[in-house]
Amino acid sequence: MSAPSSAPSKLNSQNHEESLSRSLLVDQYQSVRHYSERLCSPLQTEDYGLQAMDSTSPAKWHLAHTTWFFETFLLKPYASDYQAFHPQFEYLFNSYYNGVGSQFPRHQRGLLSRPTVAEIYQYRQYVDEALCRLLEAMPAQSAADIATRLELGCHHEQQHQELFHTDLKYCWFQNPMYPALSSEPLSPSAPLAPLSWQSFEGQLQQIGHQAENGFCFDNELPRHKQYVEGFRIADRLVSNGEFLAFIADGGYHRSDLWLADGWAALASKAATSTQGPAPLYWLERDGQWFEYTLHGLVELDPNRPACHLSAYEADAFARWKGCRLPTEFEWEVAAVAGDTNGAHLPTIEHSLLHPQYASNTKADITGSLWQWTSSAYSPYPGFKPAEGALGEYNGKFMANQLVLRGGSVATSPGHYRHSYRNFFYPQDQWQFTGVRLAQSL
Amino acid sequence: MSAPSSAPSKLNSQNHEESLSRSLLVDQYQSVRHYSERLCSPLQTEDYGLQAMDSTSPAKWHLAHTTWFFETFLLKPYASDYQAFHPQFEYLFNSYYNGVGSQFPRHQRGLLSRPTVAEIYQYRQYVDEALCRLLEAMPAQSAADIATRLELGCHHEQQHQELFHTDLKYCWFQNPMYPALSSEPLSPSAPLAPLSWQSFEGQLQQIGHQAENGFCFDNELPRHKQYVEGFRIADRLVSNGEFLAFIADGGYHRSDLWLADGWAALASKAATSTQGPAPLYWLERDGQWFEYTLHGLVELDPNRPACHLSAYEADAFARWKGCRLPTEFEWEVAAVAGDTNGAHLPTIEHSLLHPQYASNTKADITGSLWQWTSSAYSPYPGFKPAEGALGEYNGKFMANQLVLRGGSVATSPGHYRHSYRNFFYPQDQWQFTGVRLAQSL
Amino acid sequence: MSAPSSAPSKLNSQNHEESLSRSLLVDQYQSVRHYSERLCSPLQTEDYGLQAMDSTSPAKWHLAHTTWFFETFLLKPYASDYQAFHPQFEYLFNSYYNGVGSQFPRHQRGLLSRPTVAEIYQYRQYVDEALCRLLEAMPAQSAADIATRLELGCHHEQQHQELFHTDLKYCWFQNPMYPALSSEPLSPSAPLAPLSWQSFEGQLQQIGHQAENGFCFDNELPRHKQYVEGFRIADRLVSNGEFLAFIADGGYHRSDLWLADGWAALASKAATSTQGPAPLYWLERDGQWFEYTLHGLVELDPNRPACHLSAYEADAFARWKGCRLPTEFEWEVAAVAGDTNGAHLPTIEHSLLHPQYASNTKADITGSLWQWTSSAYSPYPGFKPAEGALGEYNGKFMANQLVLRGGSVATSPGHYRHSYRNFFYPQDQWQFTGVRLAQSL
Amino acid sequence: MSAPSSAPSKLNSQNHEESLSRSLLVDQYQSVRHYSERLCSPLQTEDYGLQAMDSTSPAKWHLAHTTWFFETFLLKPYASDYQAFHPQFEYLFNSYYNGVGSQFPRHQRGLLSRPTVAEIYQYRQYVDEALCRLLEAMPAQSAADIATRLELGCHHEQQHQELFHTDLKYCWFQNPMYPALSSEPLSPSAPLAPLSWQSFEGQLQQIGHQAENGFCFDNELPRHKQYVEGFRIADRLVSNGEFLAFIADGGYHRSDLWLADGWAALASKAATSTQGPAPLYWLERDGQWFEYTLHGLVELDPNRPACHLSAYEADAFARWKGCRLPTEFEWEVAAVAGDTNGAHLPTIEHSLLHPQYASNTKADITGSLWQWTSSAYSPYPGFKPAEGALGEYNGKFMANQLVLRGGSVATSPGHYRHSYRNFFYPQDQWQFTGVRLAQSL
Repeated sequence: MSAPSSAPSKLNSQNHEESLSRSLLVDQYQSVRHYSERLCSPLQTEDYGLQAMDSTSPAKWHLAHTTWFFETFLLKPYASDYQAFHPQFEYLFNSYYNGVGSQFPRHQRGLLSRPTVAEIYQYRQYVDEALCRLLEAMPAQSAADIATRLELGCHHEQQHQELFHTDLKYCWFQNPMYPALSSEPLSPSAPLAPLSWQSFEGQLQQIGHQAENGFCFDNELPRHKQYVEGFRIADRLVSNGEFLAFIADGGYHRSDLWLADGWAALASKAATSTQGPAPLYWLERDGQWFEYTLHGLVELDPNRPACHLSAYEADAFARWKGCRLPTEFEWEVAAVAGDTNGAHLPTIEHSLLHPQYASNTKADITGSLWQWTSSAYSPYPGFKPAEGALGEYNGKFMANQLVLRGGSVATSPGHYRHSYRNFFYPQDQWQFTGVRLAQSL
Repeated sequence: MSAPSSAPSKLNSQNHEESLSRSLLVDQYQSVRHYSERLCSPLQTEDYGLQAMDSTSPAKWHLAHTTWFFETFLLKPYASDYQAFHPQFEYLFNSYYNGVGSQFPRHQRGLLSRPTVAEIYQYRQYVDEALCRLLEAMPAQSAADIATRLELGCHHEQQHQELFHTDLKYCWFQNPMYPALSSEPLSPSAPLAPLSWQSFEGQLQQIGHQAENGFCFDNELPRHKQYVEGFRIADRLVSNGEFLAFIADGGYHRSDLWLADGWAALASKAATSTQGPAPLYWLERDGQWFEYTLHGLVELDPNRPACHLSAYEADAFARWKGCRLPTEFEWEVAAVAGDTNGAHLPTIEHSLLHPQYASNTKADITGSLWQWTSSAYSPYPGFKPAEGALGEYNGKFMANQLVLRGGSVATSPGHYRHSYRNFFYPQDQWQFTGVRLAQSL
Repeated sequence: MSAPSSAPSKLNSQNHEESLSRSLLVDQYQSVRHYSERLCSPLQTEDYGLQAMDSTSPAKWHLAHTTWFFETFLLKPYASDYQAFHPQFEYLFNSYYNGVGSQFPRHQRGLLSRPTVAEIYQYRQYVDEALCRLLEAMPAQSAADIATRLELGCHHEQQHQELFHTDLKYCWFQNPMYPALSSEPLSPSAPLAPLSWQSFEGQLQQIGHQAENGFCFDNELPRHKQYVEGFRIADRLVSNGEFLAFIADGGYHRSDLWLADGWAALASKAATSTQGPAPLYWLERDGQWFEYTLHGLVELDPNRPACHLSAYEADAFARWKGCRLPTEFEWEVAAVAGDTNGAHLPTIEHSLLHPQYASNTKADITGSLWQWTSSAYSPYPGFKPAEGALGEYNGKFMANQLVLRGGSVATSPGHYRHSYRNFFYPQDQWQFTGVRLAQSL
Repeated sequence: MSAPSSAPSKLNSQNHEESLSRSLLVDQYQSVRHYSERLCSPLQTEDYGLQAMDSTSPAKWHLAHTTWFFETFLLKPYASDYQAFHPQFEYLFNSYYNGVGSQFPRHQRGLLSRPTVAEIYQYRQYVDEALCRLLEAMPAQSAADIATRLELGCHHEQQHQELFHTDLKYCWFQNPMYPALSSEPLSPSAPLAPLSWQSFEGQLQQIGHQAENGFCFDNELPRHKQYVEGFRIADRLVSNGEFLAFIADGGYHRSDLWLADGWAALASKAATSTQGPAPLYWLERDGQWFEYTLHGLVELDPNRPACHLSAYEADAFARWKGCRLPTEFEWEVAAVAGDTNGAHLPTIEHSLLHPQYASNTKADITGSLWQWTSSAYSPYPGFKPAEGALGEYNGKFMANQLVLRGGSVATSPGHYRHSYRNFFYPQDQWQFTGVRLAQSL
């Protein structure tokens, strides 16, 4: 994790500035924490505990684990008189930090009816109060470290805010009552513009986070050179209508379009499925396609971006189109180039929890759905994870996963970066994932 | 299902008697229904949804399914103007009645956060009111059928009251906080009397339910002859202390004591276990044994009955002792013989949710723990299940399971019978199951 | 195992008789041993090593394991100067006798390309020679034990002769070239006579092996009383044509006909199957049914007995017919009653490796196919297995399996008994198993 | 697949040259074909059929499949009067070419006792004769295509020659008799020289096959630019002794050294293993380490290269050393740079079937063991697979696998290239895989 640009000044006479800085940290912290709780407001108590597969976690667990993160990496090392809220929470809410200790088995998180939801909220309040006390009273010599870790903790919680949406969606989809998180109906979409392309000549490029852009995760560093051959990339995401044409053309049954592992995954999925192959959350009933969304079950709209595709589906679709997925370097080159005015953060209307094409194409490309790239998630040249348990944040997952770029309707405000490297396994479908086409020139 | 002894009279002039009978039915019904809800009173909302393995169901599901049973088999056929509470509940809360329709997948019951607990209680109230109206207004020609089905429904709900306890215990055991259902502490036990035997000569016996004893399930019929060779049977259950001696003697590691399938089950369990083999819910910490109970985690008391044993464990222990498990016929012969005064219903103190030896030995034998028999669960000669979906109640499970006899601390008052045939797979451990030794003479 | 009726005389002066007895033992032994090798004569070297599922063993392994049995239980304890053929064979060819030592994993037997087939035949010859020397020179005090174990070893090898056929058939079925063991074509069958019934009044019966009938396995003892209610039983097995009618009537899709475990087994099998449900070895191609036999792939003949059914299929068919499977006691009562002249051994033409109806109905009932009974495989009252490792022969399998009675085209000559108790799991299909219907009177 | 450099001339008058070219093709073909059969000469018939896991194929299948390749891609399209040897072989011996048709299930290849080994050799001879006839009579217009496909077929067969070794080794390892393929003993190794490093400055590099070097697979193309940052790379492979030090230091138990997926793989492997974690084929007995080799079971020699490591083990070891695995680009840069005289083909003594350090270090680095790189197996920029079924050769596997570079003792003579991209899943251990360390400068 890089040091945040807002690290406290080292000048000991500037008390006012320091106080201001502390106040900013507290604001940042509370803003992120409140956002998590606001997201949960439509939930019933029963919804907080759902875990429909090993990879998803209950909402309750997300609320507790993000709190555990601040307790473990800030309060325990820096708040000298801090008393842990509960002796078993270190074990129960550790996700995967072996350096901290052993963990309650991931696939059983949904079995923790206790602590209750109310107790988790008490835990959050307890830690929040202790943390604000720490921020107000932190000694100068550890202020920079605390600020760095606080910023990391806030971005960490934002990642779990996105997972809150995707995990809940997967769990609710198992319920034939198809609950909705948002009570607002999805509005009909406008006709879709034809896809056009943006071209780039081959050249040596600078890839990775630029220090002047503030915070980033360690996996976005070091900034380094990549030779990127000439390519062109689509100016919008693939639509439901286009994916329906792929299905109608027998795309799921043409082995020549599929990576061998993807073809095998289709076969094993077919063995347990009651309908033909389709993207996750698509349901066919009497010849009509429906899609489960966080606004409930709706008719499939051909003029919305196709989402919840695996990388195998994305890749097969691209091949069917005579195209391919972009590399993560191509994606970043295009994103940076398209960003002439620096306003790269899409303004996402957060009551809208399903992707639609934006009138502002730029926002659509970067922020409506995560986009599979063909790049394996691996370290940038010279990558160094942090020392200690915090070093387990990103580096140890650099195997078998692919990089996704962009952001989605479930991404929290302020969490987007062109250099951001999200990563999932190619078969994963429960994130908000879509396809952006590319071709070599 | 046999006709209940309290079937309404056919004499149309005896209005008073009929009215009394209706009132008794309503009382019986309400008593059973209230008991289910009283059992749940210590639960938090979060506890209602737990499902830790495919074989267990959430408390919420038990509350709904027993209601579904009355709705499906009484209200829909007999209450002409009945409106179903919710169109999807027929699918969601059908357990395994293929004759009624398809079922929500059993292993996913824990994923139904909706309907909420509050909605399930509304469903219960709605059905209860409709059912009481039906009972008060039932036409004479269907009164006998209704009464028969009502009695079956009540016994069905009592079975789920027992499963409520065993399923919840299994689910809570996954939580290292080890929640307790009862806040009363377990009192220390008295020293254990030496085991003594009761002997029976070989002779032709009558086995099965006797009509004068009231209600029974179809699998307890027909009453029929069995030649039972001479045997003797223990006057109390095997204790924790005795089972500890089996472990200390290497009983889990002596293949000669185990059925081949049991030995294989031990091996596959060892592959995923972090401690040595032991009964379910036993935990060893620093050389001290503990036991998880519905009163919380307690030190293992050698003077209590050993429970939560699989039939394989029960059988291996018996062989180690130079004994064997009784057949279900031997068990019934002994139970009937021991019951000189007809008071065969054990008076179970229901705030006590863990077995202990009774001062009254007779009650202990029959009602503290279910007792594995060596008898495969199969039809009695001439067995005929009911017509239609209700015929799926017992008969279709007559494969691969063993009969257990007796009752347990989790059995509801009034649900015990000497002729009762409970059945589980030999590897099952989550019921309140123990061992009673027998020998051939 | 009971003592054979041919146990050597105890009179020490009758040298001639003793010598005769030794010579008979040698003859019996050599006859069984040669038969095993004759069965293998159509095999290619490559066929000897096949293992298509955990439950089947390679032909090579059967040849070695039966030899191991004689080496372990006769030569090692009784032939004082015996040198084991190979130090690793005790481990490699022990099947499941934990009392002898650990075993090479069962599911990997097909991976033992070494020792080669030729080496296994050398092993057989080496043990045969040593055993004949032992029989000729055995001291009087151990002669009875040796004769008893020899007889057991011969019957054990006959059991493996049957498994040789069923295991090979299962393995070859995986090969789309469908090899044949017999080059003789199956002749067309005669039209099928209508089924008729044999009735028996309810009464107390004697069940189990009678000492005067010579050898039996321990599980056929003790002879004991069973009260058997009135029943009737079919005079022939169910035919392919009758089972086709069951399929045509939707029998595989009517849940009311199936035991719950059988219904679940159908569902999980359907998930991996490319054709609709049918008995093992049945193949449908363009609307025409074929059957794989040890004579190759042939058109399904409606006038042959239906075989390779699971107990679930047998039970569902019987229920569809308004009948049920017989208990093992009923079966034995009928078999003994039908056997007026003592000639209960069917004369099976052993070049015929697929069942057909015999002109002599009696032989057909008992010896053409093993017949599922509804009886769980459990100990007779007072059952005592032998001491030591030989006690692992039968008793430890008395869980989860069903008894089959009769014999089959793959049963070796001289191996049939009315009291014989074969046992397999209800889902097993690779034995020669069929259905004989019964009804309660 | 690129066109071979030896493609026939287009000048129609140069008959002599053309005839010479045909003769060279025949020689190349026969040389490769004979080599496959020579490799099999130590096998017993029984060894040809072994398949110990889904990923391995029987020796017999390798012999047949490579023949199928020539039959399918040369004889059927180009030899107009060719009669297929057997109608079912197209199905039985197709590996994964969906474009050709469906395939016999991979995991069941070990169940094909028929066709016999002798029949497979007849198949080879039949195809060889037909192919030589084709080569002698091929029309000018298809000569270039035929020559191209022939060369591909020869390289394809060489790949299977390597798999013959690795698959057989894995299968034989399951047999506690530990058969040896080579009867020559492994000679003791010399003391190991300390590891030294070779450094490279960061610069733009050309990566991929150079046309002047003759044949290559399609995945080595197009040659393209990569910016490779400064790095250094070890001059020899990691030794057994060094890996023993890793084990002794608790390397298998330090989660901080392992990729998350590797750590999970360790845990699931531990659940079924009877000894502590170690490389595949290592056995510990009474504190002494042994290693299974194709020369039999031998004491582990600390001065030989460590082999049969997964990529996870390789990566953890490198991290323990403060190093990392090289990228495939670094590896190629170093290999090309070290190769001043063009003699890049290691002269492997093929009676030696286990790696040892060469006196000539260069050969050791490139040809003794395949070396895991950190590079995901993905397409080079502009990669285009061939049209039709032959396009399934390499491209469809570009997911989830890692690139290995080099060659091994099991690689056939003439099959090595600096640009060669071998690929396996990170958990795979049964190839001859080792570790070469790298560091960023």
